[in-house]
Amino acid sequence: MPGKFITFEGPEGSGKSTQIRLLAEKLQARGNEVLCTREPGGTATGEAIRNILQHDAAGEPLGERAELLLFTASRAQLMDQVILPTIEKGGWVLCDRFIDSTLAYQGFARGMDIVTLDALNDFAIHARKPDLTILLDLDIEAGFRRLEERYSDSGESHDRFERETRDFHHRVRAGYHKLAQREPQRFAIIKADNDIETVSSNIWAAVKGALL
Amino acid sequence: MPGKFITFEGPEGSGKSTQIRLLAEKLQARGNEVLCTREPGGTATGEAIRNILQHDAAGEPLGERAELLLFTASRAQLMDQVILPTIEKGGWVLCDRFIDSTLAYQGFARGMDIVTLDALNDFAIHARKPDLTILLDLDIEAGFRRLEERYSDSGESHDRFERETRDFHHRVRAGYHKLAQREPQRFAIIKADNDIETVSSNIWAAVKGALL
Ligand SMILES: Nc1ncnc2c1ncn2[C@@H]1O[C@H](COP(=O)(O)OP(=O)(O)O)[C@@H](O)[C@H]1O
Ligand SMILES: Nc1ncnc2c1ncn2[C@@H]1O[C@H](COP(=O)(O)OP(=O)(O)O)[C@@H](O)[C@H]1O
Ligand SMILES: [Mg+2]
Ligand SMILES: [Mg+2]
Repeated sequence: MPGKFITFEGPEGSGKSTQIRLLAEKLQARGNEVLCTREPGGTATGEAIRNILQHDAAGEPLGERAELLLFTASRAQLMDQVILPTIEKGGWVLCDRFIDSTLAYQGFARGMDIVTLDALNDFAIHARKPDLTILLDLDIEAGFRRLEERYSDSGESHDRFERETRDFHHRVRAGYHKLAQREPQRFAIIKADNDIETVSSNIWAAVKGALL
Repeated sequence: MPGKFITFEGPEGSGKSTQIRLLAEKLQARGNEVLCTREPGGTATGEAIRNILQHDAAGEPLGERAELLLFTASRAQLMDQVILPTIEKGGWVLCDRFIDSTLAYQGFARGMDIVTLDALNDFAIHARKPDLTILLDLDIEAGFRRLEERYSDSGESHDRFERETRDFHHRVRAGYHKLAQREPQRFAIIKADNDIETVSSNIWAAVKGALL
């Protein structure tokens, strides 16, 4: 029996990494093979691409179409090398960000054409959509507060999130909601501002309802 | 006055590098600013992409869609960083391979969908096609003979060309001819099996006829 493919979406700090770990534990306890991966990256080629995306080569600005195509190349490679083979062998794949991040960030927040982005996504994934997409929905101000805590604890820089305006984050959130409305069957919207265990139980209920 | 954009196409060994150099000299003698570039590459990001394309990351096979998207990302970056700004400033750009290589190799020779490739190309180049495409047309057997000489002189390996079947090279050549038929205004087909000076004169005549 083929496995399942679940993606996690939502803003930085919404709890994707935390919840993927917890869902993986629950599935493994049930006896499922689970593979956790992320975008961009997840393959040797994808990590090389992630490198280009994160360190502007020799200080050269990366154009927005080149950036999008690099994300899409990483996605195609991840699909072919990891996701499809794992599902075929009956494994479960949990992926931290996927096609909907492109649509929410590059599309709804930055204004790139949605029809073009849909076409690129379809091309990258061979039209094999996730079986379920967990959207961790978090109030923008709550997201800022949560990340401030994390960064003040770790001494990490808070730049990447704060660099964008609040307006940008509102467009991301509204974009995610439009995507969920467009494919209500695929999405489960989970309130991310409950405590970690409550969020995890709600995700588990959504997974059981949709896939088990 | 904006500059001009000329691409060179044709199989390996057809004389693209040789003829770009000679055309650049003629244009410079006329007082034009000339920039010669190549694909994939031509920008810091593009060279990093070229690296991924040439050295399969950690021996991982590169999927055909990921490969195509990497070529396209390099093209978008070259367009934004180099080609468009140079043309805007009145310079001439001579580019070794461009959109038609994707169509001839990935499309006509390997069988990827031409409509998809056209859409990706248009996206990468903002629909700014070359003003002129020089197609160096060479009989397949003559191409093999020419490269054998080069490689026996240099001790370089002949693999990359010979690895593909003769049938593959025939499909590339036929593909290039279909592309030229589709856009006869943009293409100049130049017989590549004349001596270097004759080919160069014929290219010069085509450039003068179309662009000067
Ligand atoms: N439900 C929650 N309530 C409070 N803090 C949380 C919750 N979920 C995650 N966190 C904390 O918020 C921060 C971001 O969580 P993380 O899982 O890394 O989010 P993401 O991967 O979406 O960026 C971490 O410090 C994490 O411990
Ligand atoms: N018209 C020609 N006649 C004979 N040899 C040629 C001609 N044009 C190029 N060559 C030689 O053929 C080889 C391939 O030429 P090159 O310009 O590198 O082709 P490409 O860039 O298309 O692969 C080189 O050794 C070059 O000197
Ligand atoms: Mg995370
Ligand atoms: Mg060459």
